[in-house]
Amino acid sequence: MSKTQPRYVVGDIWDERIVMGHGSGGRKMHRLIARVFLKHFGNPVLRRLEDGARIGVKGRRLVMSTDSYVVQPLFFPGGDIGKLAVCGTVNDIAVMGAAPEHLSVGFIVREGVELDLIEKLCRSIGRTAKQAGVKVVAGDTKVIEKGDDEGVYINTTGIGTVRTRVKLGPEQVKAGDAILLNGSIGDHEAAVAVARGVFRFRARLASDCAPLAGLIQKLVSGPGVKMMRDPTRGGLATTLNEIAEATGLGLVLHEELVPISPAVRGVAELLGLEPLYMANEGKVIVVASPEAEKRLTKEMHKHVYGRKACRVGEVVAEPKGVWLRTAIGSLRRLIMLEGQQLPRIC
Amino acid sequence: MSKTQPRYVVGDIWDERIVMGHGSGGRKMHRLIARVFLKHFGNPVLRRLEDGARIGVKGRRLVMSTDSYVVQPLFFPGGDIGKLAVCGTVNDIAVMGAAPEHLSVGFIVREGVELDLIEKLCRSIGRTAKQAGVKVVAGDTKVIEKGDDEGVYINTTGIGTVRTRVKLGPEQVKAGDAILLNGSIGDHEAAVAVARGVFRFRARLASDCAPLAGLIQKLVSGPGVKMMRDPTRGGLATTLNEIAEATGLGLVLHEELVPISPAVRGVAELLGLEPLYMANEGKVIVVASPEAEKRLTKEMHKHVYGRKACRVGEVVAEPKGVWLRTAIGSLRRLIMLEGQQLPRIC
Repeated sequence: MSKTQPRYVVGDIWDERIVMGHGSGGRKMHRLIARVFLKHFGNPVLRRLEDGARIGVKGRRLVMSTDSYVVQPLFFPGGDIGKLAVCGTVNDIAVMGAAPEHLSVGFIVREGVELDLIEKLCRSIGRTAKQAGVKVVAGDTKVIEKGDDEGVYINTTGIGTVRTRVKLGPEQVKAGDAILLNGSIGDHEAAVAVARGVFRFRARLASDCAPLAGLIQKLVSGPGVKMMRDPTRGGLATTLNEIAEATGLGLVLHEELVPISPAVRGVAELLGLEPLYMANEGKVIVVASPEAEKRLTKEMHKHVYGRKACRVGEVVAEPKGVWLRTAIGSLRRLIMLEGQQLPRIC
Repeated sequence: MSKTQPRYVVGDIWDERIVMGHGSGGRKMHRLIARVFLKHFGNPVLRRLEDGARIGVKGRRLVMSTDSYVVQPLFFPGGDIGKLAVCGTVNDIAVMGAAPEHLSVGFIVREGVELDLIEKLCRSIGRTAKQAGVKVVAGDTKVIEKGDDEGVYINTTGIGTVRTRVKLGPEQVKAGDAILLNGSIGDHEAAVAVARGVFRFRARLASDCAPLAGLIQKLVSGPGVKMMRDPTRGGLATTLNEIAEATGLGLVLHEELVPISPAVRGVAELLGLEPLYMANEGKVIVVASPEAEKRLTKEMHKHVYGRKACRVGEVVAEPKGVWLRTAIGSLRRLIMLEGQQLPRIC
């Protein structure tokens, strides 16, 4: 099996039933979106398939984004489902160039869950929201019967305002642009895997789960950024594929430039996971003009969530798609995640 | 047991674990909101405890509202979880006096659910959204393991713009104002109960599930409306209690004026449910000035979702709280729903 491909490649098959892979962020989910959601909800805003929706409300440029969180276990090194639910949605808004401002929180909780646990999660949500600069303005709670998991699902939906004049979007990207990343990959998925207790050892691992709105607002305060995406479910390789599809260009990733911690490498090796497809919750891919590359990287280094920022590749006219330039110099195609790696990762 | 009280009165006890009643819309949920959510998320917008959040985005008056839907079964006479998910959120925005415009849809689906079913629900969502005048602009899908229910939960979050100049809110309500209702109560909960197959007979029942934005926008195009709420979970009696608390006034409901269909009465009697506490999904309580009462009722009669609109009671200075004036002329206090009637009703 190729080291850089996910484990379950199933080809372009249209499933008859929902499988775990439909929630993985990869190809199955993209097919579901294209064949069902766009068919019935289709409109120009949704069709852009971005992390959030650009909506104009009487002249104001707003961004709206929604995500549900079903991660197991609810608590893991570096975070919990509450912190994750704020970061994930806030980051989706931030990568659209908007400052997140308002957040709704919808709980689905199983009967029998301790109220102390709900309070712990609310404390985490409140703290993270404060750090991210968003206010929780609307909420909802539904209760379902006891079941087989820890029984807390959270939906957060956020609204932000576009404050920058920098034009962001796939149409801004050109061959020669640099691909920057604010740090190491795979930490979130590795931390959740370890928290499931599959190993006897305790790895030195923590999820990278963090609200990136502050960092990103600094990056877009001046020119240079062309487009951003956060590589969550499906990992760096899948999100780069989304960028390649949206821009119609090619992306070359340099294997030796991608920061991966030894602990993540170890967990990945043991579980047969590929770090390039592992989920992140505090990472942003920044496509930038070559002139702005140095300034933006320096700017990121100043921020607590960008200490290890670096260039990991570049945009090319040909070949189309996403390619990994390996340490020995060969080019290997990186496709979108098929199936899944770990289920219920966010 | 009093005919007008819910079945499980448990007093002011702070539970240690989540029970079904925390999702019922009644007193347990209100305690959870006050003791946990407001404590950790507290801000002036959330503290108003309205159906949606009034948020000012650079001068624009927006309303944001969120709800998750876990109804069982997924399909019932008069609707399905998809239609419900659009109506519920759209109506929460509409009762705030805003025109719903943008909607996000977040699916949590169990592994093994047929894609045909997801498509059916999406068709229903798309159709209802069109009818309600909202665009689905953002979406998300998460997959969880197979389990013990039909396995589809939906969160919708909506944004609307306040277009009316009519000032709405509890501070507008005065003694002497009329309480209007756009039709009969209990239909949604009765239809869901029957769809669960607890009866051998097939009752002539359908959920009232409907998007009310059109009707409500007509009502607030002129003066007269003081405040609106949709009596969903917890029913008419619980929502009237919310109005009484928010206004600090008393509300008198006239038993013989409240429209209840014979089929709903029959189901309620058989299941030991109290119609005044049964959930509705296409009803709006309109508190109106006495001068506007006739005009507003007439306006509602013209609309397909207001054919049976009528006055059901009035606002009084004393006694505070919610009171039922029975057919024989006695006054009986109506408290907020304690515990629950049917679980997973929306």
